[in-house]
Amino acid sequence: MTTTSAVDVTPALRRYADLADDEMQRLLPVDGSLEYLVAPVRDYPERPGKGIRPALCLATCEAFGGVAADALPSAGALELLHNAFLIHDDVEDHSDMRRGGPALHRRYGMELAVNAGDALALAAMGGPRHNVGRLGPRLAGRVFDEFDFMARHTVDGQATDIGWRLDNRLDLTPVDYLHLIMRKTCWYTTILPLRLGALIGSAGTADLDPMIDFGFHLGAAFQIRDDILNLTGDTGRYGKEPLGDVREGKRTLILVHLLTAVEGAEQEWLAGFLGSQREARAADDVEKVFELMRRHGSIAFAGAMARGIAHAAREAFDVAFAGVPESAARRFVAAMIPYMVERPS
Amino acid sequence: MTTTSAVDVTPALRRYADLADDEMQRLLPVDGSLEYLVAPVRDYPERPGKGIRPALCLATCEAFGGVAADALPSAGALELLHNAFLIHDDVEDHSDMRRGGPALHRRYGMELAVNAGDALALAAMGGPRHNVGRLGPRLAGRVFDEFDFMARHTVDGQATDIGWRLDNRLDLTPVDYLHLIMRKTCWYTTILPLRLGALIGSAGTADLDPMIDFGFHLGAAFQIRDDILNLTGDTGRYGKEPLGDVREGKRTLILVHLLTAVEGAEQEWLAGFLGSQREARAADDVEKVFELMRRHGSIAFAGAMARGIAHAAREAFDVAFAGVPESAARRFVAAMIPYMVERPS
Repeated sequence: MTTTSAVDVTPALRRYADLADDEMQRLLPVDGSLEYLVAPVRDYPERPGKGIRPALCLATCEAFGGVAADALPSAGALELLHNAFLIHDDVEDHSDMRRGGPALHRRYGMELAVNAGDALALAAMGGPRHNVGRLGPRLAGRVFDEFDFMARHTVDGQATDIGWRLDNRLDLTPVDYLHLIMRKTCWYTTILPLRLGALIGSAGTADLDPMIDFGFHLGAAFQIRDDILNLTGDTGRYGKEPLGDVREGKRTLILVHLLTAVEGAEQEWLAGFLGSQREARAADDVEKVFELMRRHGSIAFAGAMARGIAHAAREAFDVAFAGVPESAARRFVAAMIPYMVERPS
Repeated sequence: MTTTSAVDVTPALRRYADLADDEMQRLLPVDGSLEYLVAPVRDYPERPGKGIRPALCLATCEAFGGVAADALPSAGALELLHNAFLIHDDVEDHSDMRRGGPALHRRYGMELAVNAGDALALAAMGGPRHNVGRLGPRLAGRVFDEFDFMARHTVDGQATDIGWRLDNRLDLTPVDYLHLIMRKTCWYTTILPLRLGALIGSAGTADLDPMIDFGFHLGAAFQIRDDILNLTGDTGRYGKEPLGDVREGKRTLILVHLLTAVEGAEQEWLAGFLGSQREARAADDVEKVFELMRRHGSIAFAGAMARGIAHAAREAFDVAFAGVPESAARRFVAAMIPYMVERPS
């Protein structure tokens, strides 16, 4: 058992993502006001994304004996919904950048950005209806239920992520953090794609429960890596403003660790920083938080935790894919585990 | 043919709305963070609404020979989606009040309000999946398509409504306005409810095309009345901040009329007011716009137009419901026409 990447996942990731991109384009709202609706809704989907969600869905479908085409409506809807979430996340997080360009609300204003996010979310939730003819009403009904269940977790996680900042919570632990990202990130990024792939690929016969454990660890590794990249990533590749999470006071694993590590005057200063108005936070102070994170080993802690979680993900993969025969698709999913913690962007 | 209300629609409206409310409650997200998710998503649905959308859907279903229960999943989803739209509309319009209380973002902050709107929209779009078992995959598929089609119109209308303000458009005519509200308001408020009711009530045999004409006129009468109530309504009953549309520079029919009516110094002053930052608009100036609207007959113009459109709605109703036998449900839908222009809130 190893989590070191033996396989370069990028070509297959690109291939799966391109398939889903075509499907996503078909769902995109294209009629209506060019300047106020069509341009804003096309903006994020046209910026290059990684395509992790549709790729996991399509590959798992193939690994479980299905053909990717059967999972395409779901994969396209997943990627579109991801774009919708990104737009509203960026509004809610007051982010400046996304995928190397200005955040949508910086380009079009908050009002049109919120509306564009709605447009993409509504179009995405309409996507699974194309399953009814292809998969039959019973299996399509289960796909609908999966989307609904996921959405409820995601908005709850997002609500908690926002609420912790609004209430300036300083008493959080890494366990709180993992509980948060389970809902905020893992359900829609990994658990749902895996469950849909297995459900459709097996024509409804696979046990989907083990996908929760595997998807949780896989998605947690992804999210922790994301937290680290926000601090140390190459801005050109990572595509978001550096230290944006720190400025926003986002309760990342690194900040949660730092909150448990600081004492005395440092603790007081950090609480003061996090209690200040976001707009009032100086660049120097943001840098100082970053320095504290370095000095207290918070970034190293997060890196070690991501690697540990990736190990656990590999064990959970072996359970979830136990009866699944060797195939390129199965190898791809396995190779996504080290990719999550090693990816440069 | 008359548009004077002979029937008091309120008892039946309440009865239909209560039915849909139970269904809506079943769709509401109730698991998760009480303070950050559950309380915000419950807030608007618990404030008393009129229930126009579900009532039109359920009554039309009955009028076309169906039972209300068959249209309930659709009616509940419609009302939930309406609540989702209200939350984001209020954020996008920077509104202060809704249904007699503070707008959701004034109570919970913009971030949690945007997320709560997402939660309701996603839950609403999951609602129609409950039709598959009840209506069969073919009819349920048509309902899905109707929801998807409506959503695309609504976000486009909303985008244009926002964009006109962002670009401070001063060259608009009543025709532009009608084209806008067709998309922004009529599709989800009247056209879709009527089409779904006829579709489900007739088990897929009714011609839905005439519902576009009827729904457009019915919804336009509703929206113009809404524009007027924002200016002249009893705040206690209307439930929004008085003159909120004026302060926001919303291109209501009344403002569009005024823009065509003013000349010289008044025209310049009005253009200056609408070109100023929203936060910089003084209460006195808002009052002055209102006085201009009075003096130039803009409010009277809108009232006359609403009544004319209600007459056209009655003619369109006679076409759309031509083959539909007399019934309490049919009479209720007809009585909704004068209600739209006479309602006090």
